[in-house]
Amino acid sequence: MLDDYKIRFSSHVKHLQNQITEKMQDLDIEIELLEDRWSRTDHQGSPGGGGITRAFQGQTFENAGVNTSEVFGAINPDFAKKLNGTGDDLWATGISLIIHPRNPKVPTVHANFRMIQQGEKFWFGGGADLTPFYPHEEDFEYFHQVWKKACKPYECYDWMKEECDKYFVNHHRGGEMRGIGGIFFDHYNSGDLEADFNMVTDLSNHFIESYFPIVEKRINEAFDKEDEEFQLHRRGRYVEFNLLHDRGTLFGLRTNGRTDSILISLPARCKYTYKFSPKENSPHAKMMEYYFPKNW
Amino acid sequence: MLDDYKIRFSSHVKHLQNQITEKMQDLDIEIELLEDRWSRTDHQGSPGGGGITRAFQGQTFENAGVNTSEVFGAINPDFAKKLNGTGDDLWATGISLIIHPRNPKVPTVHANFRMIQQGEKFWFGGGADLTPFYPHEEDFEYFHQVWKKACKPYECYDWMKEECDKYFVNHHRGGEMRGIGGIFFDHYNSGDLEADFNMVTDLSNHFIESYFPIVEKRINEAFDKEDEEFQLHRRGRYVEFNLLHDRGTLFGLRTNGRTDSILISLPARCKYTYKFSPKENSPHAKMMEYYFPKNW
Repeated sequence: MLDDYKIRFSSHVKHLQNQITEKMQDLDIEIELLEDRWSRTDHQGSPGGGGITRAFQGQTFENAGVNTSEVFGAINPDFAKKLNGTGDDLWATGISLIIHPRNPKVPTVHANFRMIQQGEKFWFGGGADLTPFYPHEEDFEYFHQVWKKACKPYECYDWMKEECDKYFVNHHRGGEMRGIGGIFFDHYNSGDLEADFNMVTDLSNHFIESYFPIVEKRINEAFDKEDEEFQLHRRGRYVEFNLLHDRGTLFGLRTNGRTDSILISLPARCKYTYKFSPKENSPHAKMMEYYFPKNW
Repeated sequence: MLDDYKIRFSSHVKHLQNQITEKMQDLDIEIELLEDRWSRTDHQGSPGGGGITRAFQGQTFENAGVNTSEVFGAINPDFAKKLNGTGDDLWATGISLIIHPRNPKVPTVHANFRMIQQGEKFWFGGGADLTPFYPHEEDFEYFHQVWKKACKPYECYDWMKEECDKYFVNHHRGGEMRGIGGIFFDHYNSGDLEADFNMVTDLSNHFIESYFPIVEKRINEAFDKEDEEFQLHRRGRYVEFNLLHDRGTLFGLRTNGRTDSILISLPARCKYTYKFSPKENSPHAKMMEYYFPKNW
């Protein structure tokens, strides 16, 4: 019976990958899509599944990755002990995406929904978080309202929002978040597989509604050099988070994951300046205040 | 007696910091220098020393950091156990620098020379490594020849060169080095303090000769868009190394070091592209071959 859900989840994330791809192609007629279907071997050299990596480069979406994978097989026993399940065999499937728009008025977004089985144990994980660069508070409100609505039947918004605020934090930058949060959950297993499966697929089906209306609203908004400078520096902070703190990235790299698919999350361009800070009283100074937990 | 050497080493690195600063100001008349003198408290809240951070932005040198520090006091006991000395008290002084030139024909360089004492034990560490973006093999040869000459009295080039090749590696990128190496040593204590002190100060005094003649030679060389694209992507790899693998960076961030002084090492601008690779038969494709160990 678990196997049925694994097959259905795997099929679900591929379907979602296609829906998101279509949406991006609708919104960016110049977008180029490079698709790589890859396979891997497991820790013992046996077939270990693979994935579909979709790399985008466009006008609206400067760069983006919308990836699915289904991997399985033996893992390093030392590493297996650090995980939440039992034994040295892992099965994992999911969708992972990051979209970096060119216009600094359009936020960057990340989302991930996954199902994992290790021996006798299995669980779900995932979430979605927004990284805006301009203080359009109504957009942040909108993003959170969609997730509140999505979470309502499962009464999970409050704790998933809190988990998200705790997770996407640059601890080395005074506890500043990389964005304005969203929802995040890991090692989720309520004991009712059917209910958990329904919850996670239902949540994932709200991603499109949570993000693309914001893109459509801001896509043609003018921006200036200062807006872009701020965006590029905040993208630098995004790189810092992903390489220093993100468990998913470090997990992938340490398990000999496909480096190009993992680091597709990094922005096409970014900047670093010693003690960078936005001009006083600018919209960007205002934006800085949103990178700390807040009730929506 | 150890205390005398500590005072002398601390004074030496500050003198070297001034010499390197002068050299950079000579070569880049537009360079702006921002100096920050900072202090810190130790793990128990007592005075714990501080440092002099010098951040540069210029025409020849797009961004650079030439920092010295002398820190001391209590450290986290759990962390102390992971170090090579004894007890929970640390004293450390050194110079650390990274220079990112704007012209892709001029290599990026990093160097670091430090003296550390933990309880009963003390040791030296350091090195210098070059990250070029254009296959001017004669420059790489020159850099290594200077370090060979510097190491000659101590018969240390061979092993320090090998340590360097092993250290500056992006393991997640197929074992590619971030540059073309140089010298690297850590936990160095031969038992003869006078000899070790003389060796490390003497080595550090060769940094200027190892690097700036290459800058002077290439400073006015023309470059095109493709040269710059390659440079910016290799700078992306530099960021990956520093945030994923560099022990110094991770040590600094985990010990609540001064984040802005540590991450001054990151380049002003960089790029990431899914599966980036240089054009076939281009100088940049040629350059890729140098990012693996080679005898000089």
